[in-house]
Amino acid sequence: MANQNSPSSPKWIEDPPPAASYRSLFKWGAPDRFKHPNHGLVYFLKSTFGLSDSDFSQIQSPGLDPVQADLPILLDPAHVCFFESLVGPENVRRDPLTRIKKSYGAGMIDALRLRQKRIENIPDLVVAPRNKADIAALVDYCSKNRIPVYIFGGGSTVTRGIEAVCGGITLDMSLHMNQVVSFNETDQMITIQAGMSGPQLEAALNEAPERFQAKRRYTCGHFPQSFEYSSIGGWIVTRGAGQNSTYYGKIEDLVIAQEYITPTGTLRTAPFPRTATGRDLDQVMIGSEGAFGVLTEATLKVSRLMPRSRTRFCYMFRSWENAVDAAREIMQSETGFPSVFRLSDPEETEVAMHMYGLANTPAETILKVLGYQPMQKVILLGSTDGQRGYCLNVDHQVRKICLSAGAFDLSLFGVTQRWERDRFRDPYMREDLLDHGILIDTLECAVNWSNLHHVHSSVHAFIKNRPQTICMTHLSHAYPQGTNLYFIFIAKIDSINEYLDLQYGILEAIQKSGAGITHHHGIGKQTAPWLEENIGKSALDTIRALKDHFDPNGIMNPGGTLGLDLSPEQRNKIWSKDLEG
Amino acid sequence: MANQNSPSSPKWIEDPPPAASYRSLFKWGAPDRFKHPNHGLVYFLKSTFGLSDSDFSQIQSPGLDPVQADLPILLDPAHVCFFESLVGPENVRRDPLTRIKKSYGAGMIDALRLRQKRIENIPDLVVAPRNKADIAALVDYCSKNRIPVYIFGGGSTVTRGIEAVCGGITLDMSLHMNQVVSFNETDQMITIQAGMSGPQLEAALNEAPERFQAKRRYTCGHFPQSFEYSSIGGWIVTRGAGQNSTYYGKIEDLVIAQEYITPTGTLRTAPFPRTATGRDLDQVMIGSEGAFGVLTEATLKVSRLMPRSRTRFCYMFRSWENAVDAAREIMQSETGFPSVFRLSDPEETEVAMHMYGLANTPAETILKVLGYQPMQKVILLGSTDGQRGYCLNVDHQVRKICLSAGAFDLSLFGVTQRWERDRFRDPYMREDLLDHGILIDTLECAVNWSNLHHVHSSVHAFIKNRPQTICMTHLSHAYPQGTNLYFIFIAKIDSINEYLDLQYGILEAIQKSGAGITHHHGIGKQTAPWLEENIGKSALDTIRALKDHFDPNGIMNPGGTLGLDLSPEQRNKIWSKDLEG
Repeated sequence: MANQNSPSSPKWIEDPPPAASYRSLFKWGAPDRFKHPNHGLVYFLKSTFGLSDSDFSQIQSPGLDPVQADLPILLDPAHVCFFESLVGPENVRRDPLTRIKKSYGAGMIDALRLRQKRIENIPDLVVAPRNKADIAALVDYCSKNRIPVYIFGGGSTVTRGIEAVCGGITLDMSLHMNQVVSFNETDQMITIQAGMSGPQLEAALNEAPERFQAKRRYTCGHFPQSFEYSSIGGWIVTRGAGQNSTYYGKIEDLVIAQEYITPTGTLRTAPFPRTATGRDLDQVMIGSEGAFGVLTEATLKVSRLMPRSRTRFCYMFRSWENAVDAAREIMQSETGFPSVFRLSDPEETEVAMHMYGLANTPAETILKVLGYQPMQKVILLGSTDGQRGYCLNVDHQVRKICLSAGAFDLSLFGVTQRWERDRFRDPYMREDLLDHGILIDTLECAVNWSNLHHVHSSVHAFIKNRPQTICMTHLSHAYPQGTNLYFIFIAKIDSINEYLDLQYGILEAIQKSGAGITHHHGIGKQTAPWLEENIGKSALDTIRALKDHFDPNGIMNPGGTLGLDLSPEQRNKIWSKDLEG
Repeated sequence: MANQNSPSSPKWIEDPPPAASYRSLFKWGAPDRFKHPNHGLVYFLKSTFGLSDSDFSQIQSPGLDPVQADLPILLDPAHVCFFESLVGPENVRRDPLTRIKKSYGAGMIDALRLRQKRIENIPDLVVAPRNKADIAALVDYCSKNRIPVYIFGGGSTVTRGIEAVCGGITLDMSLHMNQVVSFNETDQMITIQAGMSGPQLEAALNEAPERFQAKRRYTCGHFPQSFEYSSIGGWIVTRGAGQNSTYYGKIEDLVIAQEYITPTGTLRTAPFPRTATGRDLDQVMIGSEGAFGVLTEATLKVSRLMPRSRTRFCYMFRSWENAVDAAREIMQSETGFPSVFRLSDPEETEVAMHMYGLANTPAETILKVLGYQPMQKVILLGSTDGQRGYCLNVDHQVRKICLSAGAFDLSLFGVTQRWERDRFRDPYMREDLLDHGILIDTLECAVNWSNLHHVHSSVHAFIKNRPQTICMTHLSHAYPQGTNLYFIFIAKIDSINEYLDLQYGILEAIQKSGAGITHHHGIGKQTAPWLEENIGKSALDTIRALKDHFDPNGIMNPGGTLGLDLSPEQRNKIWSKDLEG
């Protein structure tokens, strides 16, 4: 590996991971793309953790070795034969690398395990169905033969959502099930197969005139931070949110019809915007995390692409309380909604000052003079989408509300533009930091406005109770009735158990504070032990009844997903505690 | 009865119905309130049906006699004792009038049966629970003893939603379960008991400063035509829509949390705007039509009351096709949405010309000269809600789109204002018309834009195939992906069987055209035979699985609701055909 930095700069890995290495499995994003922490951020981390240049000179557990794992296939050879004859041997993979890649996600726990060369919970085979008939036959066969079925879309889960805890097979939807089924410009809807990736979908919509002879260009409006490596199926089954959700809605607002192949049969919903024909089954299936069946196709609402209408804003407030009140006022003012809407708490604002190049500039000095103090001031950034008049009106109201709350207008400082440019690049920094033993991870939750400060202060207090731990918080998906709260914690941690203690503790703190335990990451197998306490036994019993209906033999994503089949260890929230033996 | 009209005017009943009469049971709304068809409408009906003044001089089957019905209580006296001891004898009604009143709805089939003095399908007792503990005890007792439970809210069902087909008891939620539980201004939410009426809720919100020491006044934004006699519980369990739904959303968009007491236990959801904790159980329960359990409380989003921002518009288009394209453009323009948005087809526009006093005026002449021809031209009316700048921008865009589609601006003619004034009064005309053998009824459905013309023309053709039958259609709840279609048919009919033949035929035509069979009326027992065909067997099987989970003994609203326990006659769509024996 080469290091292009000057000697006193931190040592960053700048080469793509060696083929078939552990690092090739856990490195976020494109092998040859990097975003290194800038000087401001490194300076901030050094001062927070009391580190020197030499602490950044050695790479720790980089995972550059080739994966060496003896991973026997436990599945009966007759089953393997069946799968190969059904989809063709070229669509059945049994090599360890593929099996690991399609079972591990992009969570911190995945990266930590792979850095420590811990391989566990992988499927016997990875099967790539070519069409719906393949999926129906696979699900039917697996249900009859009690073979666990997992589903791989983009692999960006941070909740162990696709981890093949019980072995069996993983359906790789990304290989063949990634096509546009139909595009309907009159109804502004697109039907796509579930394995399509975010960029594939967005490109198809942006190029609608060329691709579909459409009159206009469109957007899906859904841009999670994982956008480039996420799948439409993953968005839906986790109830995900994009960074522009405040305008476009979460994925459950964008899905208008779906098709699932379950062990009980195929469920297809109709693409009416609204009906009164009993309950809304789309909302029963969105968030089902592969535990009911395989999402094969979805019909999404699309919106006109109007990039020239967009306005961008950025305001600095004197205090978090002040800014939260203004954010709430914006959401409740009946003005329509901004598209991106991110309010950082004081600690995140300090980091943002470094990341966006505002720290140690005349702008910071001016702000200080005007009474916007470090560790008190907070930054709000955002942008609008929609028709020009709509954007201008929202922008005008945001400005009016912020200024009357005493905020300083930073809209001309390019902060929002820089955030936009880096929105999908920030996750690349994770590997650089962990190369130097600095762990960054996130947990997020849903709150009502009236409970926001309680949730924020109690979770923040729990995290800060740990020495030398950074806790940055923002809200990034807002509604008239509440918002999400997104906690980012950064700590010097190199032990999996220490990490899990912290993560589980934060989950407990979120739970106790009265928040909903996830706003858009989903539950997976990681957060599952908290679900019943969070939504109540009656609610989980209803999910169990649906599980029994759709998947009577319990083959779909087994191993604790959604708290449906928790092991005793999971139930006691001690799952994975034995990782380091 | 007195008739204040001149001799040549139609004879209208202008006295409140006699106490305890059949008419007292079926007359819409307040006993002493009336809205008679105006001269323009009478003229139009006369010419359509070839009627003379003398045809309007005799009242047919007015139902003025006292209800005479021998209605034995079939329930075991021990059960009656239990109910009386539980809620107090004053809260258990066994008189026939109450039992009929709490089982019949406001549908045409209800009015026709009562005019013919046909009493059927009533509960043995009407029980008014005082609190949630009563409801829990009642549901538990009834489940154990297999006693059917029906639920009365406001009694405005048009789908036989509350009809006690299997006897048992009806819970009257309107008597005690009608209070505000809590109001949270910070989160803009109100929690109310399910038996509260629309006006009670709206008054509480409008008077929030006086009632709850709030800073502002609020609105629920939900105004179905039945508003004055509807209950919040009814809105929710039928998935209803208000006339301002294009801005505020349907009830499923307004509910943020609920509590149901089911035979299996109590299900309570949390009021987070969005989460990713598995599926959205609120959307499982909204639309459950009393078949899963009793809705006890709901938390609704509320909006700021901003009446001074409202703008009103009205445009006349040269053709239906032209106007539908403009309506779709308005919905898809990313401008935000109007609040009321009603587009009438040519036939409804003719009636509207009479109802709103535009027929035979200089305005009509000018329109004709300009090329807006009778039975071709169509009228769009609407209004905006929200912050002033939002309203102005939406209004401006609506105007721009309509004018560029060649529409004539009638916004200054007061049409929208007249529609607003009469919005809750029009149902009063039903009794006047039926007094002269003219039946008016409605069916509505959900469509995507691309299928709108096919649905409209095929359903319209079916209705018009019947001689001397008026078919008026409008869309009144619009979305970027589609809209509702609302069919109003007017015919000279006095036989129940003839009415049912027509109604069932229209339902068949809607079904065959590919529409969703209801956008906001719900399914009830009337539309239930079409549900499985409309949403598919897999979907109905999912509802059945939920039914088995919540109500294993099948006591909740039994008798065909949602197609869950259809009788052989219902299954063959011949239910009630024997009504006239």
